[in-house]
Amino acid sequence: MEAASSDMALNADYGQALALVRAKSVDDVVATMRFAYDHALPVVPQGAMTGINGGANAIDGCILLSVRAMDRVLDIDATNHTVTVEPGIINADLKKTLAEQNLAYPPDPGSMAISSIGGNIATNAGGLCCVKYGVTRDYVREIKVVLPDGTLTRLGRKTAKGVAGLDLCSLFVGSEGTLGVIVEATLEVIALPPEPLTAVATFPTEHEAAATVSAYMATGLRPSLLEFLDGITINLLNNFGDFGLDDSVGAMLIMQSDAPTAASDVERFTEIAEENGALDVAFSDNTADNEALIATRRCVQPANELYARSHGGGQLIEDICIPRSAMPEFFDGLAEIRKETHTTIAVVAHAGDGNTHPSIFYDAKDPQSRAHAEEAFEQILDLGLRLGGTITGEHGIGSVKARWLTKELDEGSRRLHREIKNAVDPLGIANPGKMLGAL
Amino acid sequence: MEAASSDMALNADYGQALALVRAKSVDDVVATMRFAYDHALPVVPQGAMTGINGGANAIDGCILLSVRAMDRVLDIDATNHTVTVEPGIINADLKKTLAEQNLAYPPDPGSMAISSIGGNIATNAGGLCCVKYGVTRDYVREIKVVLPDGTLTRLGRKTAKGVAGLDLCSLFVGSEGTLGVIVEATLEVIALPPEPLTAVATFPTEHEAAATVSAYMATGLRPSLLEFLDGITINLLNNFGDFGLDDSVGAMLIMQSDAPTAASDVERFTEIAEENGALDVAFSDNTADNEALIATRRCVQPANELYARSHGGGQLIEDICIPRSAMPEFFDGLAEIRKETHTTIAVVAHAGDGNTHPSIFYDAKDPQSRAHAEEAFEQILDLGLRLGGTITGEHGIGSVKARWLTKELDEGSRRLHREIKNAVDPLGIANPGKMLGAL
Ligand SMILES: Cc1cc2nc3c(=O)[nH]c(=O)nc-3n(C[C@H](O)[C@H](O)[C@H](O)COP(=O)(O)OP(=O)(O)OC[C@H]3O[C@@H](n4cnc5c(N)ncnc54)[C@H](O)[C@@H]3O)c2cc1C
Ligand SMILES: Cc1cc2nc3c(=O)[nH]c(=O)nc-3n(C[C@H](O)[C@H](O)[C@H](O)COP(=O)(O)OP(=O)(O)OC[C@H]3O[C@@H](n4cnc5c(N)ncnc54)[C@H](O)[C@@H]3O)c2cc1C
Repeated sequence: MEAASSDMALNADYGQALALVRAKSVDDVVATMRFAYDHALPVVPQGAMTGINGGANAIDGCILLSVRAMDRVLDIDATNHTVTVEPGIINADLKKTLAEQNLAYPPDPGSMAISSIGGNIATNAGGLCCVKYGVTRDYVREIKVVLPDGTLTRLGRKTAKGVAGLDLCSLFVGSEGTLGVIVEATLEVIALPPEPLTAVATFPTEHEAAATVSAYMATGLRPSLLEFLDGITINLLNNFGDFGLDDSVGAMLIMQSDAPTAASDVERFTEIAEENGALDVAFSDNTADNEALIATRRCVQPANELYARSHGGGQLIEDICIPRSAMPEFFDGLAEIRKETHTTIAVVAHAGDGNTHPSIFYDAKDPQSRAHAEEAFEQILDLGLRLGGTITGEHGIGSVKARWLTKELDEGSRRLHREIKNAVDPLGIANPGKMLGAL
Repeated sequence: MEAASSDMALNADYGQALALVRAKSVDDVVATMRFAYDHALPVVPQGAMTGINGGANAIDGCILLSVRAMDRVLDIDATNHTVTVEPGIINADLKKTLAEQNLAYPPDPGSMAISSIGGNIATNAGGLCCVKYGVTRDYVREIKVVLPDGTLTRLGRKTAKGVAGLDLCSLFVGSEGTLGVIVEATLEVIALPPEPLTAVATFPTEHEAAATVSAYMATGLRPSLLEFLDGITINLLNNFGDFGLDDSVGAMLIMQSDAPTAASDVERFTEIAEENGALDVAFSDNTADNEALIATRRCVQPANELYARSHGGGQLIEDICIPRSAMPEFFDGLAEIRKETHTTIAVVAHAGDGNTHPSIFYDAKDPQSRAHAEEAFEQILDLGLRLGGTITGEHGIGSVKARWLTKELDEGSRRLHREIKNAVDPLGIANPGKMLGAL
């Protein structure tokens, strides 16, 4: 139970659970929720526990309700392009099954090899391809959920369109277990996209890279991936693996296009990068090379963790999403914050969406170092809000940012949140304290 | 006030309003809602009154609150691809303003020349291009709404992604005025798409056309438009205008592609149509011809109305959305219903999405004719649900289908709807009776 009490956040507390239920069926979930409701016990829904905000962490006296073992594909409808699954299935496993039929479920969080579809839905997970393909919510047509009192209900619809009633399906997408438990989902799928072309551009500082992103996206061309890595991140990657990246540069962009116009898209990207001061632009249509590069990109978090472990173990991960045009200003602000708080901050970003992930490192055994990191964390959230952004583009609120949610939402919205939570979960047993806990 | 008391539904009742407010500003809306709240008066939000389900119709003793005069573009952000508007702006006017900057707001309901963005959001309007570009909800990033007690709040966020809190923005999209009044919206826009290529295929019966749609969509190619017209509709069009369509055929498909692969897409469509028994396939890259054809398609409702007027005035418009593969079965069912209820039913469909609009004609002065039409209406809704569809793909529930919503939603969902409505609007003054009225 201890092992099942915390997700992958390095800085989130967790409590002492009462019990762990490993549901094998919808009936198990219904029975658990009925029991919890009858005894007014808090329930923490759990998928694969890869969250990084403490959302799935135990709270004192709770029932941990894992749906990870409910991982079947129930139906693939290749004609209508939908798939129906249980919530525990791992994102990458679903992708593999679909690929056999030339189909794809696009959402690809960095954690796709280890996170569950139910968790993806409960956090409205983003990823690398959303710049072209959208986020999890864009693919969820219908869900079955077990409400806090144990009622099983169907929300949304299986068809391509539908407006019968309020959009309660979207209300549950991204609700982080605070409204009920997702026990089944029908997702839209698409034809497997072709292999992308890839371009890699390096820049003297973050500024030129940010300007390139803003200018390229303003053309209206849709890359299928547009990732940013700052110099520190590149160094940490080289330390982690034998990647041989040029770590003398200030920033790097990885751009992919899987459009029929990929060749000219990559050319246009090259032009714009060069106009904006790129040091070097290379491109490749070699699938193995490209996959290796993206695999390297997916190593950023392990590389960061390795660095953190050898520097006192602390890491706070931000998830600020800002208008793309505000990125240069964001990096200026970040430089100030680094100086003021004496912190090391590495930045990786789903740049095409303006979704940045600064990682703040600290020595977990040194209270002053931790205080500095926390100060930097707060200042970055403030900076993001000031630039017209949000405190979380994809990772969610969990317990780590619950207090901050009150800053982003205005009074009317906070009240609406409370009223709706209370209407759906009058006893307050669905993942209490998480996300909405400070409102 | 009488003129402002009913939308474009031919068969919806309306009541006697107390007052009509033509809001010119957010403050006007706030003041109106506060007054209504203090006096527990029902309020009916109104846009351009083009709805066809009675959603904006007066109810006895209500305040009609029109935001049609709030029609300014507040901001166009060409770098970040967003536009901020007041709710009363007409969809086509916004499109025109954006086109000057090579930008586009895709959602294009048949009524785009006459319906408001606020109304489009409140109904989550669909249209012809959603088969490729999605529905209104996919473009709404942030809205400002005035809640039933007069509180002004901001929901959603301006950035490309964001998961801070529950997705209350989506909850208001499609809420048909039952949760509050939308007074501002920030919408995502895209680069103006290129002119499409167009193909027109004719078929002996609806069956071959439906099979073509199902097979073509299963390839994963995304047409930018894929419309179906049955033989009766083609005849009514020829009666309405001098269109010279071949009205001896059983059905017609209009297909467009604006993709870089448009030429090969159209070829593929032609092949599939021929494989499935098309009588004839023609295609064109002449912009004027193509626009004329789409304009003809947009005349279906006026043509239907002309027919209705000369046949006793009655028309019930359905909006069933089913899985695409169920369309052949749907047409079989429809043939049965025609026979059994002695009704004339013409069908047009956003076929790529499986969204069909059967129109049932009747003599409004003949109770038996009306009864037959209503019987057909009910049977078609039943048929749609039986085939795994929804009773409304895009037109919404309004007052006309309120009773039917109870059939589509299960008990848990109905309860959730009631609880959430009650939490947001405890006095029940926001468009009472509409959409949720029978739950
Ligand atoms: C290396 C790494 C990279 C990552 N990259 C990304 C990324 O690119 N984009 C991104 O969005 N996230 C990313 N994440 C965060 C995380 O993987 C996602 O939030 C993921 O969606 C969580 O899925 P899970 O199954 O692990 O959920 P969990 O961690 O088990 O739970 C997450 C939240 O959802 C709730 N929940 C889980 N399952 C259900 C259910 N069936 N019903 C109701 N509530 C449920 C939990 O209560 C909790 O609040 C990353 C994490 C790691 C470790
Ligand atoms: C010829 C014709 C073709 C059509 N084709 C389509 C189509 O292809 N796709 C489609 O989806 N619809 C279609 N419609 C239906 C209708 O045009 C749409 O529903 C449209 O979105 C309504 O916009 P409106 O401004 O006219 O809203 P109204 O009719 O004024 O109101 C519609 C509903 O929204 C509410 N509402 C309006 N404004 C606000 C606001 N600011 N805040 C809160 N609530 C509000 C009203 O209370 C009402 O419930 C068509 C209608 C006609 C007449």
